[in-house]
Amino acid sequence: MAAVSDVASREEVNEAARGGRSGGRAGRRAKRSVSVAPVGIPYIVRQLPPHNILSEESLVRIEATAETLLAEIGIEFRDDPECLALWKGAGAELDGVRVRFPKGLIPELLKTAPRRFTQHARNPANSVEIGGDNVVFAPAYGSPFVMDLDEGRRYGTIEDFRNFIKLAQSSPWLHHSGGTICEPVDVPVNKRHLDMVLAHVTLSDRPFLGSVTARERAEDSIEMARIVFGSEYVENNCVIMGNLNVNSPLVWDGTMTSVLRAYAAANQGNVLVPFILGGAMGPVTTAGAIAQAHAETLAGCALTQLVRPGAPVIYGNFLSSMSLRSGSPTFGTPEPAAGSLVVGQLARRAGLPLRCAGNFTTSKLPDAQAMNEGTMSMLSAIHCGANFILHSAGFLDGLLSMSYEKFMMDADFCGALHTYLGSVVVDDNTLALDAFREVGPGNHFFGCEHTLRNYETAFFDAAAADNTPFETWEENGSVDAATRANKAWKETLAAYEAPPLETGLAEQLADFVATRKSSMEDRWY
Amino acid sequence: MAAVSDVASREEVNEAARGGRSGGRAGRRAKRSVSVAPVGIPYIVRQLPPHNILSEESLVRIEATAETLLAEIGIEFRDDPECLALWKGAGAELDGVRVRFPKGLIPELLKTAPRRFTQHARNPANSVEIGGDNVVFAPAYGSPFVMDLDEGRRYGTIEDFRNFIKLAQSSPWLHHSGGTICEPVDVPVNKRHLDMVLAHVTLSDRPFLGSVTARERAEDSIEMARIVFGSEYVENNCVIMGNLNVNSPLVWDGTMTSVLRAYAAANQGNVLVPFILGGAMGPVTTAGAIAQAHAETLAGCALTQLVRPGAPVIYGNFLSSMSLRSGSPTFGTPEPAAGSLVVGQLARRAGLPLRCAGNFTTSKLPDAQAMNEGTMSMLSAIHCGANFILHSAGFLDGLLSMSYEKFMMDADFCGALHTYLGSVVVDDNTLALDAFREVGPGNHFFGCEHTLRNYETAFFDAAAADNTPFETWEENGSVDAATRANKAWKETLAAYEAPPLETGLAEQLADFVATRKSSMEDRWY
Repeated sequence: MAAVSDVASREEVNEAARGGRSGGRAGRRAKRSVSVAPVGIPYIVRQLPPHNILSEESLVRIEATAETLLAEIGIEFRDDPECLALWKGAGAELDGVRVRFPKGLIPELLKTAPRRFTQHARNPANSVEIGGDNVVFAPAYGSPFVMDLDEGRRYGTIEDFRNFIKLAQSSPWLHHSGGTICEPVDVPVNKRHLDMVLAHVTLSDRPFLGSVTARERAEDSIEMARIVFGSEYVENNCVIMGNLNVNSPLVWDGTMTSVLRAYAAANQGNVLVPFILGGAMGPVTTAGAIAQAHAETLAGCALTQLVRPGAPVIYGNFLSSMSLRSGSPTFGTPEPAAGSLVVGQLARRAGLPLRCAGNFTTSKLPDAQAMNEGTMSMLSAIHCGANFILHSAGFLDGLLSMSYEKFMMDADFCGALHTYLGSVVVDDNTLALDAFREVGPGNHFFGCEHTLRNYETAFFDAAAADNTPFETWEENGSVDAATRANKAWKETLAAYEAPPLETGLAEQLADFVATRKSSMEDRWY
Repeated sequence: MAAVSDVASREEVNEAARGGRSGGRAGRRAKRSVSVAPVGIPYIVRQLPPHNILSEESLVRIEATAETLLAEIGIEFRDDPECLALWKGAGAELDGVRVRFPKGLIPELLKTAPRRFTQHARNPANSVEIGGDNVVFAPAYGSPFVMDLDEGRRYGTIEDFRNFIKLAQSSPWLHHSGGTICEPVDVPVNKRHLDMVLAHVTLSDRPFLGSVTARERAEDSIEMARIVFGSEYVENNCVIMGNLNVNSPLVWDGTMTSVLRAYAAANQGNVLVPFILGGAMGPVTTAGAIAQAHAETLAGCALTQLVRPGAPVIYGNFLSSMSLRSGSPTFGTPEPAAGSLVVGQLARRAGLPLRCAGNFTTSKLPDAQAMNEGTMSMLSAIHCGANFILHSAGFLDGLLSMSYEKFMMDADFCGALHTYLGSVVVDDNTLALDAFREVGPGNHFFGCEHTLRNYETAFFDAAAADNTPFETWEENGSVDAATRANKAWKETLAAYEAPPLETGLAEQLADFVATRKSSMEDRWY
C-alpha cells in the first residue's frame, strides 16, 4: 500500500499522467508514452477536480429521501438468514425479510469503511489504490456475446475471454484486468469461474475481480487468490473483489449477500451496484432513481462492515434510461450522464470510493453512435469523480456484446483521459513568457527553445486516430476508425506476451482448477 | 430584448429545456419535443453549472501573464491607421504598428461591453440572448469542402451552402443559422457574401452571421440586415454579427480590424477568436496558449468599445493541438478540452459572453473517431460555459470539410445537450416518494401513477440513435449511424419548407444583391 499511497509516489504518478515534465521513474515512463510503445502508469491521480453540480440543499433532500426509504419502506434481504441475523444484531427492525433501518444506523456502521484502499496485483508495480483522487480503468463486464467486424455477433467463448484479457494487459491505458469480460458460454456455468480466474492470473499481472454467481464460486476465487498471494497476505490485504448487483428496487438477493459476506469475511473487496433502468427498476425521474440507488448501495456497504469492520467496499451506481419509441433500455444518454455527476457528490459525502458509469452505448456497431454515446457516458464517469471505472472499454449493444473493435478505441480514449485528468498545469514553464519574448508577434513557435524543451510531452497522440492530411488518408485506402481498430486488435493479440509468472504457480493453480472441476458434474444453467 | 431576458421568460425557456414539467407555452412545446416532430426552444438557459477547474491563484497567474504580454510585448495592428489612431487616443503606447497597453487600460475600456445581449432574428420567437447562463448552438463555419457518403469530398457550392441552411433551420436543436457554413466556391470571391446573406435571410428565420472577408462586404451584410429589420431598428439592436480571427501570435490584421470597426460602429456584434495551434501560433503548453489568447481577445474586445461603447462583443477562443507523428493539427484532443474549461473561467471573470470550442474532429469520415473526438470537444464547450457555440454541427476533417451526415448526428447530439444542460431537478415530484410507497421492494415501476405522470417528458429520445433490440436492428438491415444519417439529411431536405417572409422583402434583397453584383467585376481570389 505504501508504495503508491505516500505523497512522493502520488506526485510521481500524477506527474506521469500529466506528461512527466520532471524526472523520476514515472516521469521517464511518461516520456516514453509519446513514443511508439507507450508505457502506462498503475493508476491515475487526478488533477482535474470532479464537477459538482447540485447545491447543498438539493443533496440534503436526496439524502433525506434515501434515509426515508431505509427507515420507512426498508429493503428486503431474501434467502439469507445469516444476513438477517446480522441486521437484527445491529439494531435494524425486521419484518420477515423486510429490514428497516433506524435513522443514523447506516452512517454509524459505515464509519469503519475505508475511504481508500489498495487492491494488490501479483506484479506489485500494478497495484491500484482505489478512492480519493485516484482513477482506475477496467474493461467492460458481463456480456453474453462478443462482436467483431469479421464474424459479427456470436456467443462468447473462453478463447474470447482470454483474448480480451490479453488485449487489456497489452494496453498502457487500462489499470485493471476486470472480471467477467464476456461470458465464456462454452464452459459449464458452474465451472466458468475457475477458468476465468485462472486466465486473469496467468495472462495478466494486474488486479482482477472474482466470481459472484454463487457463494462457493466466490470462495473458489478467493482460494485461488490465496494460492497466488499466500493466505496470510490475503488475510491482511485486498487482492480480489466481487462486483455485485442489487436486485432493484430495494431487494438484495441471498446469492448476492452470501457472496458479499464471503468477500468481506476474507477482508476482500466488494463493489455494490444498483442497476436502475428508470421507469422499470426505479422511478422514471432521475432524482428518485438516485435516492433509491443511494439507499440500496449504502445498505450493502454497511452490511460489509457488519461482516468485518474495515473490509474494503466500493459505492457503485449504474443509471440507465429508456427509449419511449421502442421501450428498450438506452445507454450513453443525457439523463444518466447528469445523474452520475450527482452520484459522485453523494459518494464523496458518504466518504466511500466510487464506481460509476463507464463507456456505455446502445449501438450494435463500433460506429459513430457508439462513440458519441460512449464518450458522453465515459466523460460522466470522469467528471463525477469515479475511482473505479468498470466498463471502460468494449461495451456495445447495451452490454449484450463485448466488441473487439470498440475495445481498442475505448482503451485509446482511456489514454486521452490520462492527459485530460492531468488538467492544465500553470507554472513558469507552461506560461511560456520566455517563448513570447523569443518569438514576438507574427512569428511561429516551431523552433523556439520553449517548444523544443516541451514538445515531446506536449500532446497526447491517439493510436486509434488517423490524424494525417486527407490526401495521405486517401492514399492509405480511406480507412474508417472501426476498420483500423479491427487491424489493431489482431496485431495486438499477435504481439502479446504473457507476463512472467512465478515458477510452480501455474501448476498449483491448474491442480486446484482440475480438482474442483472433477468434484462436480457439469451444469449448463 | 425583453421578450426573452425577463425572469419569467427565462424560467419558461429553461423549463422547456428540462422537459417542461410545468405549464406555459414553452412547457407545451417541450412536451411535444418527445413526439415525432419535436419543436425547439430559441436557446438554452442552463441549469447545469460550468465546471471550474483552476484555483484563483492559477487564474490570476494566467491573467498576469496576459497583462504582461499586453504591456511588455504588445500586439501589432497592421494595415489599419484608423485603428492605431483609436489606440493612441485611448492612451496606448505606439511603436510603429506595435501597440503596448499600460496595465489597467484594457479592463477600463471593457467596462462598457455588455455582459449579455440579444441578437434578434427576423422571426422574433427565434431571437437569442447571448451571455449569462444562456447557450446558443450554431452550425460549423468555414470549410472549403463538403462531404457526404455518396459523393465523398468535393468543393462546396452555393447549393451546398443553401442545403446546410435548410438542414439547420429544420433542426429543433440548433438556435442560430451560422455564417459561412461552407465556402460556395462556385460564386466569385467578391460576391459570395451577397448570396450567403440572402440565403440566410430567406431560407432561415433564425439569427445569422455576416461577412468578414473585407470591410465593404461587412458593410453590404449590414446593409442587407437594414433592409430586413429597418435602419432605425438596426441602429438600436444587434441583428447581425461578424466572426473574426486574430492572426496569432499577437497580430490583428487590418482586414479584421476594419471589419470589426464596421460591425461595432453599426452597433452590431463581433465574435473575436484567436485560433491557436499549440507549438505553431502559440506556445506548445496550454497555459501559455490560453494567456496569449486571453490577451489577443481582450485587446479586440476593448477595440470594439473604443469604436462604440456598448457595442456587443463575444470573447472567443479556439484551442487546437498537434500530432507528433504527422505534424498535423489535431482536434477533439484532451489538451484543448481541459484548456477550454480554463478559458471559460477567464471569460466569466472578464464579464464577457463566451464563444469556445465546438464539435471538433480530425477524422475524414463521420465515423467512430469523428464522434469520439467531436463529443469530447463539444462537451468541453458545454462544461466551460460557452454561450455561443459555433461549430456545433457538421465539422469534419479539421474543418476542411462540412459533412452532411455528421451534421445530422451532431444536431441530434445538440438535442441531448438540451436535456443535459437541464441538470438534475430535485423536487417532490422527481424524488418520487409517492412512487416508492405505491410500488415497494421487488416490484416494477412501469404502471405506477408517478411513471404515468412523468414518462412523456422523462427521457430524451435521439432521432439519430438506433435503440431497437439487436434482432430488430438486424431485420432492418444492420444499418450503421452514418448510413442512417445519410438517409436523414435527404429526407429532411425533401421535407424542408421555407419560413414565411414578409411580402416584398425577397424582391428588395434581390435588387440589392443584383445592384451590388453588377457594380463590380468577378474576382476569384
